[in-house]
Amino acid sequence: MHVFDAAIALGADEECHYTGNTHPAYGNMVGPFGGVIGATLLNAIMQHPQRLGDPLSLTVHFAAPIADGGFSVEARAVRTNRTTQHWYVELVQDGPVAAFATAVTAIRRDTWQALDAVFPEVAPAATIAPVPAIARAAWTACYEMRFIDGVPGAPGSDSDSSESRLWIRDLPARPLDFLSLSAICDAFFPRIFVRRPNWVPIGTVALTTYFHADAAQLAAQGSAPVLGLARALNFGKGFFDQTAEIWSESGALLATTHQVVYFKE
Amino acid sequence: MHVFDAAIALGADEECHYTGNTHPAYGNMVGPFGGVIGATLLNAIMQHPQRLGDPLSLTVHFAAPIADGGFSVEARAVRTNRTTQHWYVELVQDGPVAAFATAVTAIRRDTWQALDAVFPEVAPAATIAPVPAIARAAWTACYEMRFIDGVPGAPGSDSDSSESRLWIRDLPARPLDFLSLSAICDAFFPRIFVRRPNWVPIGTVALTTYFHADAAQLAAQGSAPVLGLARALNFGKGFFDQTAEIWSESGALLATTHQVVYFKE
Repeated sequence: MHVFDAAIALGADEECHYTGNTHPAYGNMVGPFGGVIGATLLNAIMQHPQRLGDPLSLTVHFAAPIADGGFSVEARAVRTNRTTQHWYVELVQDGPVAAFATAVTAIRRDTWQALDAVFPEVAPAATIAPVPAIARAAWTACYEMRFIDGVPGAPGSDSDSSESRLWIRDLPARPLDFLSLSAICDAFFPRIFVRRPNWVPIGTVALTTYFHADAAQLAAQGSAPVLGLARALNFGKGFFDQTAEIWSESGALLATTHQVVYFKE
Repeated sequence: MHVFDAAIALGADEECHYTGNTHPAYGNMVGPFGGVIGATLLNAIMQHPQRLGDPLSLTVHFAAPIADGGFSVEARAVRTNRTTQHWYVELVQDGPVAAFATAVTAIRRDTWQALDAVFPEVAPAATIAPVPAIARAAWTACYEMRFIDGVPGAPGSDSDSSESRLWIRDLPARPLDFLSLSAICDAFFPRIFVRRPNWVPIGTVALTTYFHADAAQLAAQGSAPVLGLARALNFGKGFFDQTAEIWSESGALLATTHQVVYFKE
């Protein structure tokens, strides 16, 4: 079993009460990497016998710090329509809710299609060396990241732009699916560390991802790296946003994702 | 009372069980304008005695069609921290949940700030004539929209770009606050009608808004128009996304907003 699948694994009783555990491989500086928590909440939906269709959108609220250890997860189909279904999922740890998510799953169909975003011309992944993992953030060893630009600099090396462009994939390699893609959407280094590389405590407050690809497109991706473009639009009053696009090597927009992040100074 | 405030008004009993009604002034082609439904859900939080701080993020799920008429709303503080609070709100009409929202409210504080997005140089609102309202979408008469570009064209006049830029404000004029700003974030014409102006049924599935401004910044805005930039990134398989920035006349980024929209063809 791939370490990612071990990290998002859920046990379930007959009434879909799920239980899970944080995994040391995806530890962050404090508690677990948020991308794997979001993927775990999505996994409760993926495993749910009432699920209709595949993920279309996912919003994760990181409501409180999550401690290393066990938790329980409850997923509820709030409303089921003919081709779309709306979900609410809660992660409870030692009593109160520590994280929750809403999601839409949907049956997709072939329709007119058009791409408005522009696939950037960048060097292929194989021509760029990956960056080393960051020891104090274990999860970074679970991703291969090859930066075209926007590597967080040394303290004091402020940048005019918060943008990063990088090829990224699971390490070890793993075929892409909605679960791993949802986690990759949270695997961009916090934009404040690109724009102003001084270490300050940060934490994602809420994250929304839209899945543009269907299951067949993701399966066709295999374990090839995806191209991520991430930037912030605004920093101030203790929060910043972060917005990103995830592209396939062949120029398909797989997902777009947005989050709001707390920072302290 | 301004018609917007009448439209989002909620009655409440002593235990914060809220009741509301759709308002004909904000009717859409079918049912009510989603922006006002989202604002109504946010209003349940704004009125809630347990609320901590002001809105930071809002995600609205349009789970099913809403009929003209009455509904009930329940707001629950899922988790309250020292400076942030996470909410879940449901709108019920005749039994099942028709819409729901999650939100974060937060106490903001002065910190380092930086703007990454670029305020576009456009003609001032006063130099541009507003577009007429659309008779079959009553809510369009509740907004003054002055387009710089990206007006939906005549059927058949496809565009290479889905982008629109417009000055927008409430009609009649109303001082901006989190509630009206949340509705303005859903007041962009669906991007498919800019890119491919053929009428097809559409509906927002889920919408997320990040509020970058605090209450004082919004109050300073008064009833001046705000500049909206909206575009889609991808259309296909029955859905498209829509992403927008809302700016003040003085170049402050007030909000960013993203949605996923169903379309039929």
